[in-house]
Amino acid sequence: MNGAASMIDRLYEVVLHRKGAAPDISYTASLFARGRVRIAQKLGEEALETALATLTESSEHVVHESADLLYHLTVLWAAIGVKPTDVWRELERRFGTSGLDAKKTRGTGA
Amino acid sequence: MNGAASMIDRLYEVVLHRKGAAPDISYTASLFARGRVRIAQKLGEEALETALATLTESSEHVVHESADLLYHLTVLWAAIGVKPTDVWRELERRFGTSGLDAKKTRGTGA
Amino acid sequence: MNGAASMIDRLYEVVLHRKGAAPDISYTASLFARGRVRIAQKLGEEALETALATLTESSEHVVHESADLLYHLTVLWAAIGVKPTDVWRELERRFGTSGLDAKKTRGTGA
Amino acid sequence: MNGAASMIDRLYEVVLHRKGAAPDISYTASLFARGRVRIAQKLGEEALETALATLTESSEHVVHESADLLYHLTVLWAAIGVKPTDVWRELERRFGTSGLDAKKTRGTGA
Repeated sequence: MNGAASMIDRLYEVVLHRKGAAPDISYTASLFARGRVRIAQKLGEEALETALATLTESSEHVVHESADLLYHLTVLWAAIGVKPTDVWRELERRFGTSGLDAKKTRGTGA
Repeated sequence: MNGAASMIDRLYEVVLHRKGAAPDISYTASLFARGRVRIAQKLGEEALETALATLTESSEHVVHESADLLYHLTVLWAAIGVKPTDVWRELERRFGTSGLDAKKTRGTGA
Repeated sequence: MNGAASMIDRLYEVVLHRKGAAPDISYTASLFARGRVRIAQKLGEEALETALATLTESSEHVVHESADLLYHLTVLWAAIGVKPTDVWRELERRFGTSGLDAKKTRGTGA
Repeated sequence: MNGAASMIDRLYEVVLHRKGAAPDISYTASLFARGRVRIAQKLGEEALETALATLTESSEHVVHESADLLYHLTVLWAAIGVKPTDVWRELERRFGTSGLDAKKTRGTGA
């Protein structure tokens, strides 16, 4: 499996694994312990930071905030039983095979 | 390359391709035309919808909102010149090779 | 009662009154009809617009977005039975009589 | 002037006064020192907490979060030179004298 391409799937596995760790050792475990409301709050905060970074900061800062956002999104998924493949399937459904073929996409949807 | 695993990289290619389409035909092109402030606003809105869906809706709805969120995140990246690989590199840096090896991660970071 | 000073209390009365109007005539009534999740979503969106306007736009635009934010906040309060006086009491409790006397506040709290 | 009715105007005066205090003594002063991006971020976070509290918590919690939201909104206004009266004027313009007279508002706008 290509490393970079499957980063979120791998990140999800790490997050799932840490779900069972001690909250005082693992930040991920402490998030799970605080529950889905707090995780949802963190997701919103990271999206806000990403949005503000877009307007005021360097690309490097946007990369940093995007990593925070994606990490918290995978924690949210793990907290409620959503799997990355569920989301990939939804994206595939929307953008489809032709949608994902750059040569054929003009005016066919998104 | 594994299809599902690299969905975001492929989505990014679609988004980049549509950047040059006519705004009245492609929603993606219309987003680019409206500029980075509006794209950042959309990212924040989708994160908010994902967060609220987590508290009130089915897993299926969270999947749907997560797809919206990831789509708008890739548009934001494309608008400011960030590449998915930049973000994968940052996640790799944080979680590392050992961090991404579930067998070795207990208490070693996130 | 001083007009400008009590604007939010008066706005709240308008909002409460329109709660009973027809959703197809009154935007306020249509918000109530859509329920608290949608109202909460709107509050978050208006806060996001206010935050982004702060970074990118004129003061006039921030005034406009702040009015949107306060309007949706009063709708949220009305939807769940919170009264403006409940919030004024909380602010009074925090900032207190001395806290609200500018001459005496140096270093005494917020 | 009625105390409760003019709470935000009075809060704004407190905030303005503390703008000149030492950041290590006053939380308000420390917010000003961190700049408008950080204040905008805080506003967005408090709106998110208010929205989530609406869905999951008691009315009392919503009151608490609303107070946080209004406090940070006045700090934002003070940071960029917006005055509460600017916002009251905008709300007056929208809802008007008739709009603010509950007896006459049916179907006349919001």
